[in-house]
Amino acid sequence: MASNAPIGVFDSGIGGTTVVKELIASLPNEKIIYYGDTARVPYGNKSKETIITYSRQIAKFLLEKEVKAIVIACNTASAVALETLRHELTVPVIGVVKPGAKAAAEATKNNKIGVIATRATVNSGIYEEFLHKTDPKIHVYKQACPLFVPLVEEGWIDDDVTRSIIHRYLDGLLKKNIDALILGCTHYPLLAEEIGKVTGDKVKLVNPAFECAREFRYVLEENDILCEEENPHENEFYVSDDPASFAGFANSILGEGSVKKDNVFIKNFD
Amino acid sequence: MASNAPIGVFDSGIGGTTVVKELIASLPNEKIIYYGDTARVPYGNKSKETIITYSRQIAKFLLEKEVKAIVIACNTASAVALETLRHELTVPVIGVVKPGAKAAAEATKNNKIGVIATRATVNSGIYEEFLHKTDPKIHVYKQACPLFVPLVEEGWIDDDVTRSIIHRYLDGLLKKNIDALILGCTHYPLLAEEIGKVTGDKVKLVNPAFECAREFRYVLEENDILCEEENPHENEFYVSDDPASFAGFANSILGEGSVKKDNVFIKNFD
Repeated sequence: MASNAPIGVFDSGIGGTTVVKELIASLPNEKIIYYGDTARVPYGNKSKETIITYSRQIAKFLLEKEVKAIVIACNTASAVALETLRHELTVPVIGVVKPGAKAAAEATKNNKIGVIATRATVNSGIYEEFLHKTDPKIHVYKQACPLFVPLVEEGWIDDDVTRSIIHRYLDGLLKKNIDALILGCTHYPLLAEEIGKVTGDKVKLVNPAFECAREFRYVLEENDILCEEENPHENEFYVSDDPASFAGFANSILGEGSVKKDNVFIKNFD
Repeated sequence: MASNAPIGVFDSGIGGTTVVKELIASLPNEKIIYYGDTARVPYGNKSKETIITYSRQIAKFLLEKEVKAIVIACNTASAVALETLRHELTVPVIGVVKPGAKAAAEATKNNKIGVIATRATVNSGIYEEFLHKTDPKIHVYKQACPLFVPLVEEGWIDDDVTRSIIHRYLDGLLKKNIDALILGCTHYPLLAEEIGKVTGDKVKLVNPAFECAREFRYVLEENDILCEEENPHENEFYVSDDPASFAGFANSILGEGSVKKDNVFIKNFD
């Protein structure tokens, strides 16, 4: 596989653009082909079988685009479909969950780690599975935060209502004396500053998107497919619905003008 | 078509069970076959073409079950797909939007009507289209309330955070001096009591689910297919994903034991 082949990134919708942001920062020479399943978002309330079916369809599409490696930017799909795709595909596949769990295990001093995520990711038990593999002594305290995604999408960030809801979700975790907190949904890093005000300095916030981009660099190096020379490129974006809304949100994350409307295409599997 | 044939009801997900509740109250002899598209919910952020495709698939499935008439319990699908289905199908089709708009037009005295709904329903302009057809002098004031659905699904009903968010969304409408407010999303009637505390007695809250069930009765009568004799039956429920969660929510709306797990089936169109 040529090192100047593109990398594939997929998510259930628009949130994976926070992972793209970290990938661009960490791997500026890599061309990214992003797939956001905006017609079938959210994956959170779907069954394991359905999520695996969707992830397979998307991975097949990315491979047709000749990607050299795939990043599952969606926590739910990472939790549910990573092992299947690794088993079935010949290119390296990485998810956001394992790097996030690893960073949290390194950050904690008292072995008390909080995980906030969608209900599906929380119920999947995937973060504690990885954390316990790293260190069985770690205690994991979980909280689903279903209001966070719509709050971010409303743009209510620096906002009293949002702070009340952050308190509602996090006070229980803070009482458990956690000293690390995994932001286990791609939208949550956008609330990191407000979450940090509630958790205080003693709790290290872990952004799996950032950790994933760092680990992905190692994966490319190990497989000798890191693009090291300058590689002028336009990233490509595919969505299953509503490219205009996608471009708007993506530009709010990646910087205005980063995603040109002409580079967002519709691709469906129905 | 036999009058003891079932009626078909569909929604993008679980919210349409509030329409089922009103149909059972108004039409106790009718057997209901419900389809909730829980794998593809929400429809709100999908394109018109996608919503029409999905609605056609579901209507075809309900007709295979030999329904005598169809209720579109979803505001978004009513807004977007009602005319297409009416044109293409030979059974009567009714949506929730038109009966809701009609009731609001009858309720208002000052011709100032508020509409709250998902962003998609608000952007579709469907409520004001029907309201202006009824009376061009009516002024329509709209507000998308994306936080309401997750608040209901969290069960945060009688709650300070919810009241703050209701104020945030409704204060602008109240300043316009509206005297009727359409609850234009199937989840919103579950917040009606709290919404009523904010809007006060001078604003008539209109529940399109209730109005739709009343109008549907006329439609069955007109077509001579109302089931007038006692007709012992079990309603049937189909979902595209996660029947267990559906049964839980449906029972919270329809009363515990109303939806037996054995009567919730999976049906997909992929």
